[in-house]
Amino acid sequence: MDQQDKVKQVVEASKSELQARSSMTHDSGRRSFLRNSLAAAGGIGAAGAGATAAAEALAVADSSKKMGRPIPPEEYGMPSKYEARVKRRRSDVLVNKQNFSDWSMTPLHQQQGMTTPNGLIYERHHNGVPDIDPDQHALVIHGMVRKPLKLSMSDLMRYPSVSKFYFMECSGNGLTDWLKPASKTVQQSHGLLCCAQWTGVPVSWVLDEAGLLPEAKWLVAEGADGSGHLRSIPVEKMLDDALLVYASNGEMLRAENGYPLRLFIPGWEGNVSIKWLRRIKAGTEPWHVRGETARYTDPMPDGMWRQFSFVMEAKSVVTKPSGGMNLQRGFNEIEGFAWSGSGRIKAVDVTVDGGKTWQEARLEEPVLDKCLTRFRLPWTWQGAPAVIASRAVDSTGYVQPTVEDIKKSRAITGFVQHGNGVFPWKVAANGEVTNGIG
Amino acid sequence: MDQQDKVKQVVEASKSELQARSSMTHDSGRRSFLRNSLAAAGGIGAAGAGATAAAEALAVADSSKKMGRPIPPEEYGMPSKYEARVKRRRSDVLVNKQNFSDWSMTPLHQQQGMTTPNGLIYERHHNGVPDIDPDQHALVIHGMVRKPLKLSMSDLMRYPSVSKFYFMECSGNGLTDWLKPASKTVQQSHGLLCCAQWTGVPVSWVLDEAGLLPEAKWLVAEGADGSGHLRSIPVEKMLDDALLVYASNGEMLRAENGYPLRLFIPGWEGNVSIKWLRRIKAGTEPWHVRGETARYTDPMPDGMWRQFSFVMEAKSVVTKPSGGMNLQRGFNEIEGFAWSGSGRIKAVDVTVDGGKTWQEARLEEPVLDKCLTRFRLPWTWQGAPAVIASRAVDSTGYVQPTVEDIKKSRAITGFVQHGNGVFPWKVAANGEVTNGIG
Repeated sequence: MDQQDKVKQVVEASKSELQARSSMTHDSGRRSFLRNSLAAAGGIGAAGAGATAAAEALAVADSSKKMGRPIPPEEYGMPSKYEARVKRRRSDVLVNKQNFSDWSMTPLHQQQGMTTPNGLIYERHHNGVPDIDPDQHALVIHGMVRKPLKLSMSDLMRYPSVSKFYFMECSGNGLTDWLKPASKTVQQSHGLLCCAQWTGVPVSWVLDEAGLLPEAKWLVAEGADGSGHLRSIPVEKMLDDALLVYASNGEMLRAENGYPLRLFIPGWEGNVSIKWLRRIKAGTEPWHVRGETARYTDPMPDGMWRQFSFVMEAKSVVTKPSGGMNLQRGFNEIEGFAWSGSGRIKAVDVTVDGGKTWQEARLEEPVLDKCLTRFRLPWTWQGAPAVIASRAVDSTGYVQPTVEDIKKSRAITGFVQHGNGVFPWKVAANGEVTNGIG
Repeated sequence: MDQQDKVKQVVEASKSELQARSSMTHDSGRRSFLRNSLAAAGGIGAAGAGATAAAEALAVADSSKKMGRPIPPEEYGMPSKYEARVKRRRSDVLVNKQNFSDWSMTPLHQQQGMTTPNGLIYERHHNGVPDIDPDQHALVIHGMVRKPLKLSMSDLMRYPSVSKFYFMECSGNGLTDWLKPASKTVQQSHGLLCCAQWTGVPVSWVLDEAGLLPEAKWLVAEGADGSGHLRSIPVEKMLDDALLVYASNGEMLRAENGYPLRLFIPGWEGNVSIKWLRRIKAGTEPWHVRGETARYTDPMPDGMWRQFSFVMEAKSVVTKPSGGMNLQRGFNEIEGFAWSGSGRIKAVDVTVDGGKTWQEARLEEPVLDKCLTRFRLPWTWQGAPAVIASRAVDSTGYVQPTVEDIKKSRAITGFVQHGNGVFPWKVAANGEVTNGIG
């Protein structure tokens, strides 16, 4: 079945679902979703009343009586003023007072489709955003290579490039909400997550050009920011799918996302995708830098700390309905995202009764490797309290664990890195949606 | 072969190409692409010199000595100040003096990947951009339906939605450059073109809810702008894949792209995808509005004018190198876009000798229906004058015509609508790239 057919099937299924809901609720004497919403909008219940309301709505619009805004000679367009609430936001749970090693979150509940607009991609910096002139910037490849390289941005942009859709997630995504509720919205609980089409040059081509020595087993990448953030990465991953990225979602990187050059390590914790990339050095062992000893390690039940938990394992979250929303009775589509650093999303199950029963959601095409995948499930809410959650399965067969599962295999601390537990939202009888963890 | 494998194949092919070029040019005594570019960057030719230059480059960067910009409490991010030249621009060929019925063009030569950032999507309005409060906006479905509907934006957003990647192109794209050169850049010659992931509700679901009568054969859609722009569209297309779109590329539409609601007719000329959509009326015949009699018609050799040339047929253009660029000798990747309103792109051929010989380019995945498809061909330029062009073939077998082909089947006028001819760029011996049409 090709993609077009799959999309058609989804459309047909959704349409049948709507019609089924409509006739079901109609048969049982209740108004259908659409009649409900129409009633709310303008009291349309029958053809006659509808015609009147429709005629009324067809009075010439105010906007049709005015000249609109003309086109300026040149412009970079901005969102509508009516969407000013759609912003990335700093944490309101872990309030950072000194402000230079900080993060902001993507408004996932307001994201449509698959990719996160560049202006809304979450931020995580260790010393703020540096100002780098691309004409002054260079990438150096050195260490265990036959021929060290110094590549300017214009050198790099003469290589052939590739463009790939991938998610990116901070290892700390969800760290405030794994044992008890802290965040009110999915932006705060899961917003260290984004998806973009990344454009750049495969690291393997540049390492090949530099003549990587066979005894080189690890590489260290370093950023040109105030923190000199750096991480050690195994050669195998660098040669597999790592990219030297200079653009996202069709245009050059934003300063806060690494302009003019970043490393991108698909499916791995975001902090290894070094921003403002200035060098890659080859060696035989990891460098054990602060970011892989004091940070980005996971405590184990035996008192040891696990180093190098690179892969962001399969995870999912419901974004609609989610915390802070008010659910209306009748038809609602449950929507969310699933992703896995190990491969494609194979299936997503959704529960509305706190995990007693699960239904398989529909996945929206294209379903790509290491990419956000949107899932959808039609649902009619009759007004009873509900607990909604999702559970992802990836192409390796890995099933997203519960928090209980994670607690068995990891030590319990206040915060969790690499927390990918099933995450519930509670719906109260009045429609209020709140964080249901713990 | 799955997508991952295909991408791997492309990477391997590009790498082999680079290596082949490198050894070929090395064998023949000329410097390879990479050595050339490295030489330009820092005089790196051998391991020793490379090590020195690399060490020099590793002096602590200025940006590492400063605190960076902290994260504000909330923000919508913007492009780097160093990318300020990347803008959509009004025509500099057809200069519009009164400025309300106008257009601006997408900088295709600066677009990376598949989608056009929302801030760079071309504009075409008949009376400027209206300011519409989504809370006051409604869509009315009326005419030959059993039950007229009035839907508010919140009604529409309760329907299940779909998100689809599609190109959009103005029927007048390229109209100034079909017989002789007028535009200096591909932004000016082909920039009434974009690609986005569009999110919304299939028109078919709403027509189904309204009870479209079987005798209805055409629908007319109207915008709430100052021009009251409207177009007639056959029922079959509306039921097939038309969407009521409220978001593009992950966020709500921009004002200039139809906020809060537009019609989207995949693969058809952009002017039927009515922005600021306020009503859809069903009837038995087209309405023959000004936009389908005095405008958006094509003159034929017999003196008649063809009405309803809806489909944007297969077309392609090379974006790199393109007008205004200066080609450097050695390795260069030829890049461009291909698209078809009739289906998927099946193949793109590229010529560098003005059409004497053609080579098949690589298509970048995912290759989607009615979507921009990026093609790439590695090429080594030795300094001789060249004429570069591309020719697309779509999944129906349709081959992009030459301008000569179009002149045979259409009347010659100053401008052409639906001009999809093969478009050449001339490369002079000094590397200057100019418009090669005519």
